[in-house]
Amino acid sequence: MSAPYPPSLTALIEEFEKMPGIGHKSAVRLAFHVMNVPEEKARRFAEAIMTARESVKLCGCCQNLTDTEVCPICSDPRRDRSLICVVESPKDLAAMEKTREYNGLYHVLHGCLSPIDGVGPDDIKIKELMPRLTGEVAEVIMATNPTVEGEATAMYLSRLIKPMGIKTTRIAHGIPVGGDIEFADEMTLARAMEGRREI
Amino acid sequence: MSAPYPPSLTALIEEFEKMPGIGHKSAVRLAFHVMNVPEEKARRFAEAIMTARESVKLCGCCQNLTDTEVCPICSDPRRDRSLICVVESPKDLAAMEKTREYNGLYHVLHGCLSPIDGVGPDDIKIKELMPRLTGEVAEVIMATNPTVEGEATAMYLSRLIKPMGIKTTRIAHGIPVGGDIEFADEMTLARAMEGRREI
Repeated sequence: MSAPYPPSLTALIEEFEKMPGIGHKSAVRLAFHVMNVPEEKARRFAEAIMTARESVKLCGCCQNLTDTEVCPICSDPRRDRSLICVVESPKDLAAMEKTREYNGLYHVLHGCLSPIDGVGPDDIKIKELMPRLTGEVAEVIMATNPTVEGEATAMYLSRLIKPMGIKTTRIAHGIPVGGDIEFADEMTLARAMEGRREI
Repeated sequence: MSAPYPPSLTALIEEFEKMPGIGHKSAVRLAFHVMNVPEEKARRFAEAIMTARESVKLCGCCQNLTDTEVCPICSDPRRDRSLICVVESPKDLAAMEKTREYNGLYHVLHGCLSPIDGVGPDDIKIKELMPRLTGEVAEVIMATNPTVEGEATAMYLSRLIKPMGIKTTRIAHGIPVGGDIEFADEMTLARAMEGRREI
């Protein structure tokens, strides 16, 4: 019996299968989609991949992904330059921006300290953060994830930054809005108690 | 507030979002995957798309997808040329090949008759089937899906082909192997009764 699909289609299916969360059936479905759309649309898709790879780089200042030398947030004169919010990834930054609550600057670490995985201070964008901490900066907000690694990264940075006379803060952890106390895990509940505020 | 991702990355996310079964979150995950793999791998992915689009065409004989003029099945001298199995799609053909039970040829209709969706006999590969029905062909097996449209297509073809003195058959429908009679739907059960054989 011969292979069910022509080699170039099989190659495309295999490329899709390499992607996270895409199994064999999804890969076949996606590859067939590419075969069925007008050729011009398939070309646009292929070009979008290469264009994104070629033009997206890291902002020279905050290390966020950008098409320009300095990202739109860092170059926006309306942003509060006295605040820097430290996040692990561009996705975290995007989530933060969606709240429309924060008007300061960011710094994207591209990871967090994880000795187990061999990720030390030199492997994430810490050395790019330090020169930004000039007199202009009043507060650095640690918005790393509430995981062991995220906490350790926040603590590590805080110990580096505090001696420079800059306030360091950590975002609050607690019961998510709309969440159920009954089903909250112990750690979250403990954090929620710890972070209680007078009303 | 600015857009969370640079335009070229947003464009790539939008391309992924156009694919079937890919929502916004998956599209972001896939686009970030493309950004994170080595550039060479991203290029290979983009090229796989265009190569598949450019080199895959329909077999001049059975209409299956192929990289060559005539597909490997049609040009295989070991296949039984007296049998033609009619399927709706290349995926159905691939499923049939996986069984390793069938050694005849195929014909891929690329759809089935569906007056509601405006799909008539001229919109699927029926006119490509007719010239194949030479003296060499003894039997045409209808392996269209057991849906209203699939059944109608099988009936339509059978009425065209039978007068040519060629046997037409329909694949059996019934309880799937390992399936539970208790939970089988009425239609399947009725078909299973209908298709009963002496043991």
